[in-house]
Amino acid sequence: MENGRANMKPVTGISQVTCTAPVNIAVIKYWGKRDEQLVLPINPSLSVTLSQDQLCARTTVAASADFKRDRVWLNGQEQSVDAPRLQKCLGEIRRLARKRKHKDERAGDLLGSCVHVCSENNFPTAAGLASSAAGYACLVQSLAKLFHIDGDVSHIARQGSGSACRSMYGGFVEWTMGRLEDGADSVAKQVAPAEHWPELRVLVAVVNAGKKAVGSTEGMQTTVKTSALVKYRAEHVVPSRQEDMRQAILERDFQTFGEITMKDSNQFHATCLDTYPPIFYLNETSKHIIHLVHRYNRHHGKIKAAYTFDAGPNAVLYLLQDDVPEVLALLRHFFPPSSTNNSEREFVQGLPDANRKDLPAELLNSVGLEPSPGSVQYIIHTRAGQGPQVLTDPQQALLDEKGWPKKQN
Amino acid sequence: MENGRANMKPVTGISQVTCTAPVNIAVIKYWGKRDEQLVLPINPSLSVTLSQDQLCARTTVAASADFKRDRVWLNGQEQSVDAPRLQKCLGEIRRLARKRKHKDERAGDLLGSCVHVCSENNFPTAAGLASSAAGYACLVQSLAKLFHIDGDVSHIARQGSGSACRSMYGGFVEWTMGRLEDGADSVAKQVAPAEHWPELRVLVAVVNAGKKAVGSTEGMQTTVKTSALVKYRAEHVVPSRQEDMRQAILERDFQTFGEITMKDSNQFHATCLDTYPPIFYLNETSKHIIHLVHRYNRHHGKIKAAYTFDAGPNAVLYLLQDDVPEVLALLRHFFPPSSTNNSEREFVQGLPDANRKDLPAELLNSVGLEPSPGSVQYIIHTRAGQGPQVLTDPQQALLDEKGWPKKQN
Repeated sequence: MENGRANMKPVTGISQVTCTAPVNIAVIKYWGKRDEQLVLPINPSLSVTLSQDQLCARTTVAASADFKRDRVWLNGQEQSVDAPRLQKCLGEIRRLARKRKHKDERAGDLLGSCVHVCSENNFPTAAGLASSAAGYACLVQSLAKLFHIDGDVSHIARQGSGSACRSMYGGFVEWTMGRLEDGADSVAKQVAPAEHWPELRVLVAVVNAGKKAVGSTEGMQTTVKTSALVKYRAEHVVPSRQEDMRQAILERDFQTFGEITMKDSNQFHATCLDTYPPIFYLNETSKHIIHLVHRYNRHHGKIKAAYTFDAGPNAVLYLLQDDVPEVLALLRHFFPPSSTNNSEREFVQGLPDANRKDLPAELLNSVGLEPSPGSVQYIIHTRAGQGPQVLTDPQQALLDEKGWPKKQN
Repeated sequence: MENGRANMKPVTGISQVTCTAPVNIAVIKYWGKRDEQLVLPINPSLSVTLSQDQLCARTTVAASADFKRDRVWLNGQEQSVDAPRLQKCLGEIRRLARKRKHKDERAGDLLGSCVHVCSENNFPTAAGLASSAAGYACLVQSLAKLFHIDGDVSHIARQGSGSACRSMYGGFVEWTMGRLEDGADSVAKQVAPAEHWPELRVLVAVVNAGKKAVGSTEGMQTTVKTSALVKYRAEHVVPSRQEDMRQAILERDFQTFGEITMKDSNQFHATCLDTYPPIFYLNETSKHIIHLVHRYNRHHGKIKAAYTFDAGPNAVLYLLQDDVPEVLALLRHFFPPSSTNNSEREFVQGLPDANRKDLPAELLNSVGLEPSPGSVQYIIHTRAGQGPQVLTDPQQALLDEKGWPKKQN
């Protein structure tokens, strides 16, 4: 018998859906809204959806006439359902269901019911790995399935968290700015599926850091308000970069892909620094990884790895499959696990059969950094992956058959 | 008897001049040349000339028919006289002397002679305190006096080191971009003398740092070549800032002066980050000082201190006389001297009668940083000061009466 649920009458009709949704990492950065309410960006952006084998959000939603009110649990904690972005997503989904109920009766059936939402990330939120993008994509996908809404709902995910719209698709995804006032054309579109570029790999270096200085919602507001450079970036730099990046992906041109990725990450952080007061997301470890990548590429005379940083110090490196052993060995050499915290196996996640690679002395000299033990907590090895998935096995649901959070293990 | 000078014949005619010249700290930053040869900037800039009581360069130049070749000593070491920027300054001075010799016979008298140049900074070059600006201003001023050249020679100092032209005047100095192809109109002009704003004070926090990553000459070349933002800054942001800054100085409006100073420093560093590969001059201590200043200002509800950073991690703070004790106490609290390296007296230079000020707990809470002992090496307290000075006392010359470097103490 669970607390507070003793007096519930037997549930008669309950609908339930469980989905997973991926993290995405932008190579053309989103920073700045032209409309805070509708979450409309000041520039288009483009990202790679990461495999859900390593990083994903999982959400179960249930609707039942027996539920007294909408309720939400996130990572084991009940949250206020009044959070504005959550309300927007719920409201938009119900509005859409209402519009469509003449087409599909089932869409309307649940409109009288309250919903229960239970969501989890399979990675620590504090790691700063775009958890809100995966989370809102997962919420919106689950609700859309629950209400039998077909077609694109990325414009709804966008209103939960801007970059969440890009997590609605797998592979390589662009978020178009849109021109309409209601934001209906500010949506995500797949540029190419994950299978398009099978050699592409991703290393996420989770960097040891203090608390995040400025949240991204507040940060981008201040940037748009105070930076002269961000407007120029949005209007005159990003549009052609977005085109060049799309082309580079279609042609699997890693040189161009890597160069634009690094330049755009740097320019995003430059606009943060041009903000008043300035915002700093990169720390000393981030800078050392940037130096490492440039010196590594210079050593080889071409781009073999490309970094990008979101609103935090974690580095995401894009590279090709063949170079993974060397780059991993370099990271391990210059950012070794601190002896007490990490075993070797825990240090690189998602790559069970990693071959240790010996690094030539000239390469180590070319990089020429002072090794900094413990400054990288761990590394996740992953690749491009699929969009949101529906899980049909009730074992994998986060709500029980009555629509209440399962006991935590 | 000094080495290598034993066989010299007695000197008959020798002319000798000794000058000092100041450091200047820009509040509108110079970063980027439109002409590398002539050192013409992509935007105007504006600086405060610092008092020579704390920081200055000193140079003695001598001309004698007995000198066999031009020779240069810098901080006790003989340097190659072939350094291009040195050659440019020497060549331009002689060209000007030649043009003017019909006006003033003395200007021509020395044209057949070689020169000896001996120069020193009264502060460590490695501290990254605009030593080349003071050095080239001092060289050009001394040579101009030696060759009896009157009038503005800031366009010559500019060709030694861009920002050196601003060290040719005291107080508040602007460097106009100029439009002429030969750069004759890209010169320094005094906006107001040092006495115009007697309450203004300057604290230079010399930050402990490793070696400088990228020299400023190379750095600004790469920025101009690779940053889309720096062009926009130069053309669309700086011109109006320069105007507003000039006005703020004329009106002694510290709020505007401080805000533009901080914004322009941040934007300069933003363009460094937008460079490819990116350039980082600020370190963690620099960032902490930035946070300290913003939180301090927020605590008081107005700008009481303004930071600016050149191509390195040292912070220069502008503030008004009355706030010096509080800001010094704050710096001392959050960046205390490491117990072994610095005595209290050495920690703050240029302020013998500093009163220790007690800081209210609310202010310390508002700043809310973790104290970081030893990250600031020392602090120089100074103010706006005069332009280059001629020293007439032969005791203060760096060359002896025969034109050779005096023995070092």
